[in-house]
Amino acid sequence: MTSKKRSVYKVLGTRPIRHDGLDKVTGRAIYGADVVVPGMVWGELLRGPHAHAEIISIDYRDALRLPGVLGVVTNADFPRHESSEMQLKVNHMLADDKVLFKGHPVAAVAATTRNAAVEATKRIQVEYKVLPHVLTVSDAMKSAAPLLHPEMECDHFGEIVVGSNIASHVVEGIGDIDRGFAEADLVLELSISIKMAHQGYIEPHNAVALWDENDHLTISSSTQGMFGVRTLVAELLDISESRIKVNPVEIGGGFGGKTIPYLPAVASLISRQIHRPVKMVMDRSDVFEATGPASGGEVTVKMGVTNDGKIVSAHAIIALEAGAYPGSAVDAAVRWAFGTYDIPNVRSDGYDVMVNRPKAHAYRAPGLPQTAFCVEQVIDEICERMEWDKMAFRINNIAHPGTRRADGMQFGQIGFAETLVAAANSDHWTCVPPTSDENWMRGRGIGQGHARHAGGLASCALSLNTDGTVSLAEGSQDIGGSRAVISMQVAEVLGIGAESIIPVIPDTDQIGFTDTTAGSRVTNVMGVAAWLAANELVAELKKRAALVLDFAEHEIKFENGEFSSPGESISFKDLAGRTADTGGPVNSTGSIDHQGETNGFGIHICDIEVNRETGKTNVIRYTALQDVGQAVHPGYAEGQIQGAAVQGIGWCLNEEYLYDDDGRMENPSFLDYRMPTALDLPMIETILVEVPNPLHPFGVRGVAEAPIVPPLGAVANAIADATGHRFLEAPIKPSAIVKWLIQTEQT
Amino acid sequence: MTSKKRSVYKVLGTRPIRHDGLDKVTGRAIYGADVVVPGMVWGELLRGPHAHAEIISIDYRDALRLPGVLGVVTNADFPRHESSEMQLKVNHMLADDKVLFKGHPVAAVAATTRNAAVEATKRIQVEYKVLPHVLTVSDAMKSAAPLLHPEMECDHFGEIVVGSNIASHVVEGIGDIDRGFAEADLVLELSISIKMAHQGYIEPHNAVALWDENDHLTISSSTQGMFGVRTLVAELLDISESRIKVNPVEIGGGFGGKTIPYLPAVASLISRQIHRPVKMVMDRSDVFEATGPASGGEVTVKMGVTNDGKIVSAHAIIALEAGAYPGSAVDAAVRWAFGTYDIPNVRSDGYDVMVNRPKAHAYRAPGLPQTAFCVEQVIDEICERMEWDKMAFRINNIAHPGTRRADGMQFGQIGFAETLVAAANSDHWTCVPPTSDENWMRGRGIGQGHARHAGGLASCALSLNTDGTVSLAEGSQDIGGSRAVISMQVAEVLGIGAESIIPVIPDTDQIGFTDTTAGSRVTNVMGVAAWLAANELVAELKKRAALVLDFAEHEIKFENGEFSSPGESISFKDLAGRTADTGGPVNSTGSIDHQGETNGFGIHICDIEVNRETGKTNVIRYTALQDVGQAVHPGYAEGQIQGAAVQGIGWCLNEEYLYDDDGRMENPSFLDYRMPTALDLPMIETILVEVPNPLHPFGVRGVAEAPIVPPLGAVANAIADATGHRFLEAPIKPSAIVKWLIQTEQT
Repeated sequence: MTSKKRSVYKVLGTRPIRHDGLDKVTGRAIYGADVVVPGMVWGELLRGPHAHAEIISIDYRDALRLPGVLGVVTNADFPRHESSEMQLKVNHMLADDKVLFKGHPVAAVAATTRNAAVEATKRIQVEYKVLPHVLTVSDAMKSAAPLLHPEMECDHFGEIVVGSNIASHVVEGIGDIDRGFAEADLVLELSISIKMAHQGYIEPHNAVALWDENDHLTISSSTQGMFGVRTLVAELLDISESRIKVNPVEIGGGFGGKTIPYLPAVASLISRQIHRPVKMVMDRSDVFEATGPASGGEVTVKMGVTNDGKIVSAHAIIALEAGAYPGSAVDAAVRWAFGTYDIPNVRSDGYDVMVNRPKAHAYRAPGLPQTAFCVEQVIDEICERMEWDKMAFRINNIAHPGTRRADGMQFGQIGFAETLVAAANSDHWTCVPPTSDENWMRGRGIGQGHARHAGGLASCALSLNTDGTVSLAEGSQDIGGSRAVISMQVAEVLGIGAESIIPVIPDTDQIGFTDTTAGSRVTNVMGVAAWLAANELVAELKKRAALVLDFAEHEIKFENGEFSSPGESISFKDLAGRTADTGGPVNSTGSIDHQGETNGFGIHICDIEVNRETGKTNVIRYTALQDVGQAVHPGYAEGQIQGAAVQGIGWCLNEEYLYDDDGRMENPSFLDYRMPTALDLPMIETILVEVPNPLHPFGVRGVAEAPIVPPLGAVANAIADATGHRFLEAPIKPSAIVKWLIQTEQT
Repeated sequence: MTSKKRSVYKVLGTRPIRHDGLDKVTGRAIYGADVVVPGMVWGELLRGPHAHAEIISIDYRDALRLPGVLGVVTNADFPRHESSEMQLKVNHMLADDKVLFKGHPVAAVAATTRNAAVEATKRIQVEYKVLPHVLTVSDAMKSAAPLLHPEMECDHFGEIVVGSNIASHVVEGIGDIDRGFAEADLVLELSISIKMAHQGYIEPHNAVALWDENDHLTISSSTQGMFGVRTLVAELLDISESRIKVNPVEIGGGFGGKTIPYLPAVASLISRQIHRPVKMVMDRSDVFEATGPASGGEVTVKMGVTNDGKIVSAHAIIALEAGAYPGSAVDAAVRWAFGTYDIPNVRSDGYDVMVNRPKAHAYRAPGLPQTAFCVEQVIDEICERMEWDKMAFRINNIAHPGTRRADGMQFGQIGFAETLVAAANSDHWTCVPPTSDENWMRGRGIGQGHARHAGGLASCALSLNTDGTVSLAEGSQDIGGSRAVISMQVAEVLGIGAESIIPVIPDTDQIGFTDTTAGSRVTNVMGVAAWLAANELVAELKKRAALVLDFAEHEIKFENGEFSSPGESISFKDLAGRTADTGGPVNSTGSIDHQGETNGFGIHICDIEVNRETGKTNVIRYTALQDVGQAVHPGYAEGQIQGAAVQGIGWCLNEEYLYDDDGRMENPSFLDYRMPTALDLPMIETILVEVPNPLHPFGVRGVAEAPIVPPLGAVANAIADATGHRFLEAPIKPSAIVKWLIQTEQT
């Protein structure tokens, strides 16, 4: 598949109104919490109050006596699994012999009203034996640390170890870092710490599940991947996935956090018991305390450079909080921590560390913001020591097509160099940096980032309507405008307007298998599937045009929305009106296993001011640049970049999980968990760089994940530039700055 | 497409449990009345109380003052249509200047509760000027009859006439009937009358409609054809049909009566006004009084035979009640009244007669039961006069492949002769006929019937799941087991079990265009579309098998659910598990414009007893035989035949619309409208004759409509055999029999 030049596109690159826009702004769209089905009852979870405790007994007889209460399930109601990995997933949904984090579900109750269900949870008597807990990677890695899973077999770089909180120790690398460091003229090492942060999607997790008399399970749930829900629920409940239908209701944000279903399997279990559809909806504290945020952790980066401005060696040691069960994003972190640089000798050591927190889960470019916070500060620090221009040094060392990453993979066609050149020439970078005054210290910083974008499986189907519109059924849940961008790619092929496409997202019984909407994959991968389906539609329509125009099929041309024979032509729309009398309805399918992963690269420029008295930070200008391949709907590409930049800024400046001494989260609400709002930040400026992706017919590449990676370095570097001090703990909150200000005044 | 011998089938001809069975018997299935959407309110219709009246004024200000009332719409809220045909359709939904039948909707109210909406309809003040009404075809055809549509242009055999209740006079014929009658040795004529009868589906009509801020319309409705609803609502409201999504919820019976939507357009209009989803559900009296039953009417048949037992000429005069607007089934009646016979000279005159009753609509083999009630009695009467064996005479005169019908069309491959031979040899026909005693007169009768089965458009889609199951999305609503019979045809191609197919019926945005489930078309036409899609799936899987088995694609064979290379094989299920690593999801579509109409033929045998005192009739044995082509699921073919036979028996013996002097239906409830129940009839015995349909790859032909045609003749002939008297008015109710008994005694 080869790319076409942008100028040839009629639909791609325009900004039509999204098909689902009015439904969403008017409140018509049906989200999980809106689902109502006949006979539906409410399910509620009883959650453990302790960070770490043994469950001695559960007595729910009293709960069952409450009027309206229909049933209770506990871990014992799940099937047992031989695979310890699967059993841990079950225990995550409903605790087995121990609760491992505050908010860990212990039992689920169903009742005719939500109030009755809540009340019933309070009548379940659980006897706990509280155990010592551990919350940080450094504490958890100590030999005397309380163990979350004393029996677990942990893989420490190939060796199986029992009795550790380090679920795995993984290593990636190329070259020989020791030799590299020996060649270096300067070796510099920094260690950072960063806190657990939540995706902060607006809509809490939800599920409505019915286990019917046919042993078929119907689940409605707001999820990034209805097929993923189907697979996991099938595994947890040990039933065939074709007995499960998942209806992907609208989703109010995910960012990776809705690639795992917390409620559907439990709601299904109760439904099986009580023969009623069961609805469960989390509240905000449940979401914070018991769904998967991004790992906090500790990262040490050591880098060696030669006097001619080349990085010759780099080593990262990355310890990330897995939470209560194995599985931080440390695997990704070790592979791609240095992904934006071309370094001959690289090694990354990763530690997946279990702590008494909710199990971490995917959040936009998992594992990479944490490492970029360290890497980009090391780069800046080196430049300061060597008195090098920070932009020029980066341009001199960045990844190019052919650059080999720590995991040994080589980049294909990427547009990172073009992006950095655009940054160097940008108005923001070339304008005079902000200057400090008596109240505010001001500075500018840059940071770059990379994310790998997934390939995988996708299915879609097209049905031509007789009025020239086309129904597009996609297997991908739309979390960020994919109805529009896939419609636009179909419209481009068919030579019609995006508004003539009717995109729908059917349930799992009504469309072919499609991988989860994650890894920035949909616009690219589903785009190819849709391109294939649209071309199949055109091929069939050429046959119809041959009949209508009375010419041989091979003489029919399709250009600019017109089918033409040497003498005559008929528009797409008019031909659509002739399908009934030329052979019947015209439909097509497209499916793909897109094996080519793509990569996203960006650089962000941040101007910041830091109050000399209060330590308050204000981002005063912010520009994000990214290679987006071909922007399908530039407004959505910009929106993805803006949103991710804001999330990265928040993580760097404000967001963190705060715990009390008993290991209970102190700020599980949007009032106390401080995400930036529109009032906190300036308009995020964006510059789209378009270097076509050769693995997509229109040159499209993923956008969504990469832009959360650069902000942590850019903001931290801006603060260092403003203050002359390097803050190595994120969030860089006013209290930390004030503390440093006081220390500075005192010295 | 050629047929295969039955013995080769593994799935066809078996009786698996229907996929939707448990959902339906447990009440899980979602019917229209079960639909609940956020913000939904209730709509109710105010219906006119008069059979015929001018509307002087409508004042709904008082209704709007009632708490909870949100809006009112009348005919004036519909767009005006230049096409008078379309404008009449609008006026049918909500009356314009006149109400034309008792129950004719006049206004619609929406309110937050159903009670408030009902109450509000009572507060709408409508001033009427009552007009004289007319209820029967004979009265309506009189020159002095009150006119329903004084301005309407009526087509009387090509001549345009104004000022008539005869909306059209149509004629079909071949040969020269006068010459035929001249050649005849016996010419016999009978006239019958038959009453309007309702389909009697259990579930009333319903709709939930939302006209959203995007000017998109979402409709949920129990219908036989979601695309038909889409088209008609688009036309009535003058919007593009691609702005409408119709969700075909489950349907509780249709029999032709749910091929027209009464509520969706009205609910949509109110929704547009009040910006809320509006739900409307009829009650039983609404269904009887204001939805389309089958026409009653009057039929005269004259037939001439020669002494050698051949029918040489036949003439039918058929006047059917159209109801308040044009469109009885007289077109079908004139074409196919003599469809079971091979007669060289045939003429049928049809009169479509408007009367002040609900507009007639399709009911299983429209127009043909009414004519068969006459034709079959003429045949029997001829046999009695000529002392011919009634079965032998029929066999001597029936339609064969090549027989030309009144409309000039020739039958293709049909299995009617085989069916009559099977009847002649059946246990029922060969057993001793029942004998009369002092209380009961007993007799045996036969009647035959034919229905034309429609072709048309169909779309379906298949998605292969990795566990070897296949999701089947069909554009046809399932009104009688089509999920099962289409699944079975897919399963037959794929070499898997019917239970491995997951059939679903998506909304109109999620599947290609498909004509309405009507005309006995789905098992045949959608069957071909599914067969095409399944074969496309096999073709793609052969490519995958070639990869897995490491052989050239052309060397891969597929037989008995196994893909094999010369050396090795892999099962369908195992190969399904390999799709992800052999190129991605495997999906396919099938669509067809099935131009070949097919024909269904049957003969029924009825033993009856008639009480000498009360006139009560008991069917004591009943056998129905039909050529079903290839029975896909014999149980459903039998069920269709049994159900239709019962409906025909009911129409002949019990069912009728009773009117008072003011033209108001007196029996609009299931208590007073007397349909046969399981207690009233013996088990209907069935004999399936299987002569493959050459236009279907498995030989399938439609089943559902033909079997309602023979009962009227069979039952009437049985009564004539029992009593020695020919009753020419249906229903042949006890009161009529008693009246005759009294007359007979008196003479």
